[in-house]
Amino acid sequence: MGSTIGTTLRVTIFGQSHSEAVGCVIEGLPSGFALDRRALQAFMERRAPGRNAWSTPRKEADEVHIVSGLNARGETCGAPLTALIYNTNTRSGDYDELSRVPRPGHADFTAQMKWHGAQDVPGGGHFSARLTAPLCVAGGIALQYLEPRGVHIAGHALQVGSERDVPFDALRHSMESSAHLQQQMQSLRDAQPTGFPTISEKAGRRMAALIEQVRQDEDSVGGIVECVATGLPAGIGGPRYDGIQGTIARVVFGIPAVKGLEFGAGFSVAALRGSQNNDPYEMRDGTPIPASNSAGGSLGGISSGAPLLFRMAVKPTPSIARSQQSVDLMLGEGSILRIRGRHDPCVAPRAVPVAEAAMAIALLDSWLSWPPAPADWASSS
Amino acid sequence: MGSTIGTTLRVTIFGQSHSEAVGCVIEGLPSGFALDRRALQAFMERRAPGRNAWSTPRKEADEVHIVSGLNARGETCGAPLTALIYNTNTRSGDYDELSRVPRPGHADFTAQMKWHGAQDVPGGGHFSARLTAPLCVAGGIALQYLEPRGVHIAGHALQVGSERDVPFDALRHSMESSAHLQQQMQSLRDAQPTGFPTISEKAGRRMAALIEQVRQDEDSVGGIVECVATGLPAGIGGPRYDGIQGTIARVVFGIPAVKGLEFGAGFSVAALRGSQNNDPYEMRDGTPIPASNSAGGSLGGISSGAPLLFRMAVKPTPSIARSQQSVDLMLGEGSILRIRGRHDPCVAPRAVPVAEAAMAIALLDSWLSWPPAPADWASSS
Amino acid sequence: MGSTIGTTLRVTIFGQSHSEAVGCVIEGLPSGFALDRRALQAFMERRAPGRNAWSTPRKEADEVHIVSGLNARGETCGAPLTALIYNTNTRSGDYDELSRVPRPGHADFTAQMKWHGAQDVPGGGHFSARLTAPLCVAGGIALQYLEPRGVHIAGHALQVGSERDVPFDALRHSMESSAHLQQQMQSLRDAQPTGFPTISEKAGRRMAALIEQVRQDEDSVGGIVECVATGLPAGIGGPRYDGIQGTIARVVFGIPAVKGLEFGAGFSVAALRGSQNNDPYEMRDGTPIPASNSAGGSLGGISSGAPLLFRMAVKPTPSIARSQQSVDLMLGEGSILRIRGRHDPCVAPRAVPVAEAAMAIALLDSWLSWPPAPADWASSS
Amino acid sequence: MGSTIGTTLRVTIFGQSHSEAVGCVIEGLPSGFALDRRALQAFMERRAPGRNAWSTPRKEADEVHIVSGLNARGETCGAPLTALIYNTNTRSGDYDELSRVPRPGHADFTAQMKWHGAQDVPGGGHFSARLTAPLCVAGGIALQYLEPRGVHIAGHALQVGSERDVPFDALRHSMESSAHLQQQMQSLRDAQPTGFPTISEKAGRRMAALIEQVRQDEDSVGGIVECVATGLPAGIGGPRYDGIQGTIARVVFGIPAVKGLEFGAGFSVAALRGSQNNDPYEMRDGTPIPASNSAGGSLGGISSGAPLLFRMAVKPTPSIARSQQSVDLMLGEGSILRIRGRHDPCVAPRAVPVAEAAMAIALLDSWLSWPPAPADWASSS
Repeated sequence: MGSTIGTTLRVTIFGQSHSEAVGCVIEGLPSGFALDRRALQAFMERRAPGRNAWSTPRKEADEVHIVSGLNARGETCGAPLTALIYNTNTRSGDYDELSRVPRPGHADFTAQMKWHGAQDVPGGGHFSARLTAPLCVAGGIALQYLEPRGVHIAGHALQVGSERDVPFDALRHSMESSAHLQQQMQSLRDAQPTGFPTISEKAGRRMAALIEQVRQDEDSVGGIVECVATGLPAGIGGPRYDGIQGTIARVVFGIPAVKGLEFGAGFSVAALRGSQNNDPYEMRDGTPIPASNSAGGSLGGISSGAPLLFRMAVKPTPSIARSQQSVDLMLGEGSILRIRGRHDPCVAPRAVPVAEAAMAIALLDSWLSWPPAPADWASSS
Repeated sequence: MGSTIGTTLRVTIFGQSHSEAVGCVIEGLPSGFALDRRALQAFMERRAPGRNAWSTPRKEADEVHIVSGLNARGETCGAPLTALIYNTNTRSGDYDELSRVPRPGHADFTAQMKWHGAQDVPGGGHFSARLTAPLCVAGGIALQYLEPRGVHIAGHALQVGSERDVPFDALRHSMESSAHLQQQMQSLRDAQPTGFPTISEKAGRRMAALIEQVRQDEDSVGGIVECVATGLPAGIGGPRYDGIQGTIARVVFGIPAVKGLEFGAGFSVAALRGSQNNDPYEMRDGTPIPASNSAGGSLGGISSGAPLLFRMAVKPTPSIARSQQSVDLMLGEGSILRIRGRHDPCVAPRAVPVAEAAMAIALLDSWLSWPPAPADWASSS
Repeated sequence: MGSTIGTTLRVTIFGQSHSEAVGCVIEGLPSGFALDRRALQAFMERRAPGRNAWSTPRKEADEVHIVSGLNARGETCGAPLTALIYNTNTRSGDYDELSRVPRPGHADFTAQMKWHGAQDVPGGGHFSARLTAPLCVAGGIALQYLEPRGVHIAGHALQVGSERDVPFDALRHSMESSAHLQQQMQSLRDAQPTGFPTISEKAGRRMAALIEQVRQDEDSVGGIVECVATGLPAGIGGPRYDGIQGTIARVVFGIPAVKGLEFGAGFSVAALRGSQNNDPYEMRDGTPIPASNSAGGSLGGISSGAPLLFRMAVKPTPSIARSQQSVDLMLGEGSILRIRGRHDPCVAPRAVPVAEAAMAIALLDSWLSWPPAPADWASSS
Repeated sequence: MGSTIGTTLRVTIFGQSHSEAVGCVIEGLPSGFALDRRALQAFMERRAPGRNAWSTPRKEADEVHIVSGLNARGETCGAPLTALIYNTNTRSGDYDELSRVPRPGHADFTAQMKWHGAQDVPGGGHFSARLTAPLCVAGGIALQYLEPRGVHIAGHALQVGSERDVPFDALRHSMESSAHLQQQMQSLRDAQPTGFPTISEKAGRRMAALIEQVRQDEDSVGGIVECVATGLPAGIGGPRYDGIQGTIARVVFGIPAVKGLEFGAGFSVAALRGSQNNDPYEMRDGTPIPASNSAGGSLGGISSGAPLLFRMAVKPTPSIARSQQSVDLMLGEGSILRIRGRHDPCVAPRAVPVAEAAMAIALLDSWLSWPPAPADWASSS
């Protein structure tokens, strides 16, 4: 409990910022598919720090070691797949201050309230954003399974501070919008891994400039990541608590810094009329489909065949160089905190592959757990 | 899977709109507390339809029958508690059309894609908003446990269409704001069950008028429900996927019509700097606390001692009287749908107790699953 | 937790001996199959008390009310199925003594140690053997799904006291033994519901006579139930903790009075050599099969295609009319207990359908959770 | 699913016989206790092969590497603890024959029926008895938590072939038997890790001689392991499917080769009368206790305060040097198999620490999941 997500595809994340390794165990992967380790490593690179101007200069290797779960041919074998990423930065330094003077916006304080000093303090321990690396391992593997089956996933930084990218054209679901959305997704793929993850290159430059400005201000800034999946057939998922929205939500709210999540038209539905928000049905190529997509691809927790679309809000990185007001928990009095070290002034760009990983894990789990009702399973005998 | 939430407090929701009953089984309730059935029924009344001008004129009794889980003294006894609400409206009418012509915005279409006709069609079956009644039973019981222990929960309709209520004063966390928030929560309690659930009476009147207007337009309108919990001690919850945010999210996205969820400053964090969004710590009455509450009461999935605050967006009721474009799934051609029957033009006001129930279930589960690390449990022997 | 079994097929048992009802919620049933209520009721009759000379004269109706989970045509609809059996015997009588003076062999004492008086005392509360009725509901429904797909299940009283029935001919797995086993299973079906559940009619008469003797002695006697399933294809189940043996074990040890469980050759393997116990493979009708069945149908948690065979030991009914030594928990001193009321002197015969239900639930869950690896699931889209 | 056990203490086992590593992730460990790595390694030694005359001469290091879950002081920190044991013997050799010609008594055949060649074949893959090493890691850690809290666990080889050790004196529960049982447990501790794990040294010598004889016969032999836990307070566990017996059963049936499990008087209850099998209560030192222990320490799934006692039957090692009848799955015809390599002729002695580990994991999980009902938890705030 706590570090495990999923029902049929079950992912357990482990590790701390300064433990020997972070990693994951994946149970329930379909067997018999060959893992492309090079593609997995390329996916990891998009999250890795120190690759460009707008992220922390700390460079971590994020090399994935798979110690179980594959057969001799390198295919998934039905047994749990375990992947490790060794930490290069372990147990060094003096973290006494951090355990005494909690960083505002971090889990330092609440972890202390919960564990009274037993928690692993350095680097945020198990709360560290470093734990998104094993999430990306699991997501990257899930993607390798989904893509050849027609499900494609892409994300971008929709907003950083006051700067906005153009949104995915995923709410209309016309022939034209579908083509446009594919084009947007392709342009994002073309830009990886070094470009700023925006659809509009201009918006990307403005965001990068803002992030640079914020860094010079010894501050940080928040953002919104938008993520879309196309090609998911209608009928995946199920009612109530393990529906597609809920399954995504549980993964997404396990990503550090996320404070909001919305699907399709999202919070804007509050101001809409039913006649505006309802997606009418039409026949297209002999198949019934929703002709628009305010619903964001999910009705009653089940996929509609339209693109799955979510947006998640990530808060400004709490670690900022400016002095901050905190308390010394040992002395029981106020204390001014100055955080040393190098931190991303904005997590939104590096959170893009993390959002894609979350989408991939949730969709594969939904598909495996809640496939459309089969033709009689007796035939499988 | 699918209709069960929770880890230690486990709630399974069952029933369909037109089955003999809807209800829930609750496992893991603390034993030995006496249930106040009258208070539970009063809580149910706030969700029940047909009680006022702005909801559907269908009147349902929503009387709670508890068939297991209590001892002879009416206290929880450690065994699963099962509650039923009998449906008065079962299996009547001709629903053939609905199974052929899906209602836009409902799960009719996706359920058909999933179950190919096996789903229970009348009234939306297991997808019906009627299933929020057993959620309120579970939430109402959880509330009876939390309240004497100092945890208080309140919700209101923050927005309906373009009309807005004043928000909870929960982001500041000063002495003054705490007093103000308590006053707001008290005024909401005073207004139940017949008043419109807003802090500002004026805003309530405007919302009620808007809903009446929308009804006359044969349309519906969306809204935002805001919900707060005070008195939760710091240290409840845990990292990653079963943290407080994720636990709430899983319940909330199981409520029909919800399209977005945010905590604390929510989506507005995207535009904030870290220096604005970080909540500094200070000593108050000898205790360290966050001096403001952008975080909405949760850091790293663990409660901070500040009020827990979430907002959820509910879409406009999909069932509207206006003609809508759909398809006849049997004929495979377009079809104009006109929905008969009486439906809430806006679910936001009735969703207020549902949001409170979701908060109560999630917080009690978090507390029971992830209490602060105990003094050595060996002492329990 | 606690009253729920299963992974994909999830059964939650609720109720107490003297609550308004006992029952179950079943999640994950395959959708679209029509329930035969008459057949279900007939299955329930085999467990029901008061039907014959060797069980308690208390007559309970055990009529099954299904309040959710079926569509208008009476088929499973994908939503949780909830069944109730109302208790006719509720909250009557004075049970103060039982809460003070625990019955030896019952859970009275341990429940008191756990809940300190909050537990529901009358009739054993949630620990009552009455809770095997809803287990039979779930099992009876699972059977209706398995039987048309070729899986047949039968049980018998293998031993009562020192009397033994002939065992199932399930350890050989030759052509001849298969035919013989089918004949044994048929003879058991023919004998239901009124005959004593033994393969040998003579053994049944001896067991019935022994039980009558024991009753006159104001005592009770234990037994062994043997249960077999044929027709399960090879490849169902999986390694380690959710294998077929483990899945059956978890259900079986949830049946009151069970103290032992063994598969295939069971405890006798201790005295065997590998050359005796290993089941060689051979080709039969072009298919590889194990030529004998010491393994009892499961290797590494996965079905082998040979009959699944288990035996479970049930202890003598703890409620006996003789005086017994106990303690008065309130006075803190020894006390002589005399249990009034009518009790089965031997639970083995009525435990036969319970064992079959356990087998059916476990096998259907294993099949749904761990089907043989499919041809690529992408084809399901 | 499949390789995870437990509810609050959750252990996921991973690895294959020839993968880079085997290991486990443990979630839910109580935080703040210091791990004694030397004691853990000593516990591992008792299971490790190649240490004495009666086990396989293959010598494996079984050195435990902990890569997450500890804080800088080496204490559990609330985050998942991950331990690895690197395999020295990876991917070598030619296993084509094994995937074609399944070994009788192994999971080779059923794995092939399930995964059609995707399974990891060498050494039995994820089905290998090597996976009991990470189970011992988890159990060894659980033991370190239980022992200082008064819970002591010991196991012995009760039977090997026709040779029997004296049983634990755990069914009487008198003052005298308690002292005797402690003496037996102490003698077993004194004999570790090199002696044969029996209470009677003579019996151990006879068993060792029998095993040597069996080895020379190119055969193997089965056995029974008996395991006891003392010091568990009354009131741990709960009714039905997650009771103490069921929790132990699920772990035990996940151990390769186990074919039977019984508690207390076990299968012998079949021949007993209630008046013999019921354990009367008496006051001892002011505390009510069961005066005898046919129940084996558990009533209704809840601990009674008497010793927890189980016996598990392990089949003869299926890998024997003698020629065996099998089939060539590729050619579809019979084939004579001769297994090369070195294998334990009897797994019972090495299964003793595995049984202890299973007991420790199940008891700690039960304790954490189902502690006695607390004094009001509100006090924890």
